[in-house]
Amino acid sequence: MSDTQPKPRASFQAPKGTRDLYPADAAKRRFITEAWRSASVRFGFDEIDGPTFEQLDLYTVKSGEGIISELFSFRRAGGDDDYALRPEFTPTLARMYAAQAKQLPRPTKWFMAGPFFRAERPQRGRLREFLQWNADFLGLDVPDDAPEEARLTARARADAEVISCCIGFLRELGLTSSDIRVKVNHRHALSLWLSSRNIDPSRHVELFSLLDAKGKLKPEEFAAKLAAFGFTMQQAEIFQKGLIRVTVDTAPGAPNDDVLDLTFFSEAVAPLVKALTSAGVLDWIDFDLSIVRGLAYYTGMVFEVHEAGGKERAIAGGGRYDGLVELFGGPSTPAVGFGMGDVVLSLVLEDRGLMPSGPALIARTGSRPDAFVISNGTPEASAQIAPVVAALRAAGLHARHSYKATGNIGKLLKDAASCAARFAVIVESSTHATLKSLDDGSQHPDIPLIELVKRLG
Amino acid sequence: MSDTQPKPRASFQAPKGTRDLYPADAAKRRFITEAWRSASVRFGFDEIDGPTFEQLDLYTVKSGEGIISELFSFRRAGGDDDYALRPEFTPTLARMYAAQAKQLPRPTKWFMAGPFFRAERPQRGRLREFLQWNADFLGLDVPDDAPEEARLTARARADAEVISCCIGFLRELGLTSSDIRVKVNHRHALSLWLSSRNIDPSRHVELFSLLDAKGKLKPEEFAAKLAAFGFTMQQAEIFQKGLIRVTVDTAPGAPNDDVLDLTFFSEAVAPLVKALTSAGVLDWIDFDLSIVRGLAYYTGMVFEVHEAGGKERAIAGGGRYDGLVELFGGPSTPAVGFGMGDVVLSLVLEDRGLMPSGPALIARTGSRPDAFVISNGTPEASAQIAPVVAALRAAGLHARHSYKATGNIGKLLKDAASCAARFAVIVESSTHATLKSLDDGSQHPDIPLIELVKRLG
Repeated sequence: MSDTQPKPRASFQAPKGTRDLYPADAAKRRFITEAWRSASVRFGFDEIDGPTFEQLDLYTVKSGEGIISELFSFRRAGGDDDYALRPEFTPTLARMYAAQAKQLPRPTKWFMAGPFFRAERPQRGRLREFLQWNADFLGLDVPDDAPEEARLTARARADAEVISCCIGFLRELGLTSSDIRVKVNHRHALSLWLSSRNIDPSRHVELFSLLDAKGKLKPEEFAAKLAAFGFTMQQAEIFQKGLIRVTVDTAPGAPNDDVLDLTFFSEAVAPLVKALTSAGVLDWIDFDLSIVRGLAYYTGMVFEVHEAGGKERAIAGGGRYDGLVELFGGPSTPAVGFGMGDVVLSLVLEDRGLMPSGPALIARTGSRPDAFVISNGTPEASAQIAPVVAALRAAGLHARHSYKATGNIGKLLKDAASCAARFAVIVESSTHATLKSLDDGSQHPDIPLIELVKRLG
Repeated sequence: MSDTQPKPRASFQAPKGTRDLYPADAAKRRFITEAWRSASVRFGFDEIDGPTFEQLDLYTVKSGEGIISELFSFRRAGGDDDYALRPEFTPTLARMYAAQAKQLPRPTKWFMAGPFFRAERPQRGRLREFLQWNADFLGLDVPDDAPEEARLTARARADAEVISCCIGFLRELGLTSSDIRVKVNHRHALSLWLSSRNIDPSRHVELFSLLDAKGKLKPEEFAAKLAAFGFTMQQAEIFQKGLIRVTVDTAPGAPNDDVLDLTFFSEAVAPLVKALTSAGVLDWIDFDLSIVRGLAYYTGMVFEVHEAGGKERAIAGGGRYDGLVELFGGPSTPAVGFGMGDVVLSLVLEDRGLMPSGPALIARTGSRPDAFVISNGTPEASAQIAPVVAALRAAGLHARHSYKATGNIGKLLKDAASCAARFAVIVESSTHATLKSLDDGSQHPDIPLIELVKRLG
């Protein structure tokens, strides 16, 4: 390197809270994103995507200026537009739906998976750059002028479909309803109930925020704040500990709690319980009044997906946001969806031994070589390695060979096995090879090289 | 919506130079990214990825401060690190390789595909956010102390493998060597030749930049600038028009040009020609002295992939950058790779009629429903739609149903066909269904609902 070149510098690192994914970790990410896509497609969601950054005010219109401190925001040199890296997908989704609402089918079912960004302090389960899967169900399968009862039922069906898709993904990864609980609440029902307790609707959002922050507050702080809404210490403790879980066995109908009257709730969620039963996922569900989700835009059902033992942050969260498309300039549109990040999910999968690695991971990500091509060590065989590999690849097969100088066939067969190849092709001459299955060990000698594609295809 | 809510705003749009991908466009993007991945895997490259943004100085160390105007750069509120959205992958790749160089295999073959960002004026074939595929071959398959001749040959093999992977991808999409030309040059050979013409090595980079900018200059400007290096008007015209193409038939060996002596070049590329021949891709290659690539870090072979008619910008570009890993704090590491964006590629595919759409696109992206479930219109059949769909999905099948109120089976079968479903499942009672293949029209009546999974699997 000449003196005019820049000097080497050893200190380059990935930005704090971001990840370098070397092959083993990239394969795990691929495993997750393929499973996200597979579940989305299986449940009839169509893939979309938006820009990785948006106009800054796309985020402030919904969440207020306060969100700016959590955003990576910037301006192009010489430009005058303020942008932000997307911290979530819902504003983009609402913007895109609003722009095409007239042409889009009803309902519209969309999913996406991609990178998202939050300028928060990195900690366990929370990074500054992460992947997130979003699935959303916009519109209803009943006419706009259908009776309110029919629209309520249609909302419950859509809510259940979105929750089912989320559960369908978890199930495909080998998780069960013993590993994972889906905690469901209903903000509209909660609001009705709070109103019945003479708490003015203008204060409900404030109370939701308080419930959402319960994990971060000391019990006495939480109780003091709840007292301002007329709740007793005893009720505060129940909220704090999440004890007012309405199990599926008792809902709907029978109030099972002597502190809070839950009849209102059981009635409100009855259509959802019916839809979740049809979808075959009711055993994954706990109804939990303390789940409110932090975001102010939810209008109905809200849910969070948690590891059953209460370890880790939420794996996923979502809910109904019937007012949001209108806020972004579209028609009034019932909508429900959720987001799931890859960070907490990965921790849970690793913890349960459900994150594959090695050959199992290679197989799950569709990266098994069809052939690992080896020379028997003679010059005429070695001269065929490059053209044989090229011919197999040109025929659409995944072919590898060793870059090592060794002619030790035993060692080369080990390399073939460690990359999970289906077959070793041992070239024996300028015209023939032995085919060895690495799955069952069977050997097939004297295969003409020109027949390899057919034999491996 | 109450008065305390923010007002609707209809003017939200995607940032200039970025894209909203609705399902039809997202499926095309999926088609491209799956083909990128398929070619990479087939050629034995392992997937990696890095952060979407990096420390700003990761880009300035290589390219100088001048690059800042082309970057989206930013700082976290309250933080003091300068970041930039990645405009290319090579600095991240070099940083990642340098950090783990001792543990990584030789050679290391990596690929990635993801979003990249340039703060340039959007124009045809160039956006501010785009996808790019990168494939890189780091290290050589000969020992560090191998004779220089062996290392030259190993470099040529690696160069050819990277070019072959790029061509393997284009071939899989249906493009041929009549549609696409891979223009190859060799900067080291060019430098040797310039030195032999008494042009000082300190001026070579300046000349490379001039050659790279030839498309943007008027012929007389270009000639005047070349004259400063001792080239004649006639030679300038040849550079300008790209006429000094060394076709494969004449290289290596015979000088075929009476203006420039190309013997030097044919000798320099002879090992590469041999390796490209072994890889079966020589018919895609033109050697073209006017290809230099704008970036200063290339040290050997450079190439660009163009639509054969010269329409559009380059589809892909790359080359050898043997000094870069060292610049980022790693050991001296021979390396070669390329990047291909999705924007120009899509224009070429659309132009050639090779971008699938409709049912063909659905099939190519693995999104064909296994079953489209329809009721025969009776209440007992309609009641089975939700549980049948749920059971099929739980079994890993892609199941859809209509959200329309219509009971017109003909219309519903059309919906099934338009989403390219393999089978229509017409539920006839609470226990049985008719299975209709939408591929061959065959009908199978009286299938018990509990056998559907087996019949469709």
